[in-house]
Amino acid sequence: MKHTISVLVENKFGVLARISTLFAARGFNIDSLAVGETEDPDISRMTIVVKGDESVLEQVMKQLNKLVDVIKVNDYRGIDYVERGLALVKINVKNNTRDAIMKTVGVFRGKIIDLSQTSVVVEITGDEEKIEAFIDAVSSYGIKEVCRTGVVALSRGSK
Amino acid sequence: MKHTISVLVENKFGVLARISTLFAARGFNIDSLAVGETEDPDISRMTIVVKGDESVLEQVMKQLNKLVDVIKVNDYRGIDYVERGLALVKINVKNNTRDAIMKTVGVFRGKIIDLSQTSVVVEITGDEEKIEAFIDAVSSYGIKEVCRTGVVALSRGSK
Repeated sequence: MKHTISVLVENKFGVLARISTLFAARGFNIDSLAVGETEDPDISRMTIVVKGDESVLEQVMKQLNKLVDVIKVNDYRGIDYVERGLALVKINVKNNTRDAIMKTVGVFRGKIIDLSQTSVVVEITGDEEKIEAFIDAVSSYGIKEVCRTGVVALSRGSK
Repeated sequence: MKHTISVLVENKFGVLARISTLFAARGFNIDSLAVGETEDPDISRMTIVVKGDESVLEQVMKQLNKLVDVIKVNDYRGIDYVERGLALVKINVKNNTRDAIMKTVGVFRGKIIDLSQTSVVVEITGDEEKIEAFIDAVSSYGIKEVCRTGVVALSRGSK
C-alpha cells in the first residue's frame, strides 16, 4: 500500500540528507519524492510517497517528528485530497505517426512543448496512474526519454 | 547562478541518502530536487538545481561521477532544453474575487482542480519563473497553501 506524507521542514542546509538517511537507515522505501519551496521562503515542503502497511506509516511519521528540522508531518488518511505529478516525455515521431501521437496527447490533455522532425516533447500532469497510462499509450511509438517529478498533494477545500 | 543537473541512478535502496549526504558534506546548495522513475524501472532520474559558479558545477559533477550508484551525469550548459515544474496552489475565494481569480488562472493556463465555497486549488506548470509569477499574481487574494515539485528538464529535439 502507498502512503503520501507531507513534511514541512526548515529550509536549512543538510535537512534532505538527514531525512533521506533516516529513511535509508530504517529501511523505509521511498516511492516518490518532491521537494519544493512553500509560500514561506524559510520553509520547504517534502512530499514523500512510501510503500508499506499502516505500521510502517506510523513508524515513519514518528521518526520524522523526532527530527528538529521538521515543523509538521501530515498524512492524508481519511482526508479528501488531490495529488499531481508532472512528466516530460520525448517520443519518436515519423510522418505517418505524428497525427496519432497528437491525438493521444489531446486525449490525456498533455501539452506539446517541443517538436522537431524526429521527436516531440510532451508535458503531462496527473496522478501516478494517469502519467503511467500516458507513457503506456505512447510507448509503441518509441520513447526516447522520460523525466518525472514526484507527486505533490493538497487537501481539498471544505464543502 | 543556477545549474540544472540530470543524474541517472540505479533505483536502489539508500541512493538518495548517499547523494544528498554528498551535497551536504561538500556544502553544495540544492535549490530544487525532483526524483522520479524513468522508462526503465531499474533506473531513476534525479534532477537537481544547484546554485553556484562554474567551479561549483564542475565539483558537483565530479563528485557525483565517483558514486557507484550513479550511471550518468549531465548538465545542460550550451544545450537547448526545456524545464518544467508543477505547483498546487490553494487560494482563498470570495464571491467578489472568484471571477478575477479564474481570469488570472486562465492567463497562466492553469487548471482548476478543486473548488469550494471558500477556496480553489489550482494546478500550474512551467519553469520556476512562471510558477513564481503566478503565485505573485494571486497572492493578494490570500494563499492558503503552496505545494511545489522540483523542476525536471529534457533537451529539445535536434533541428
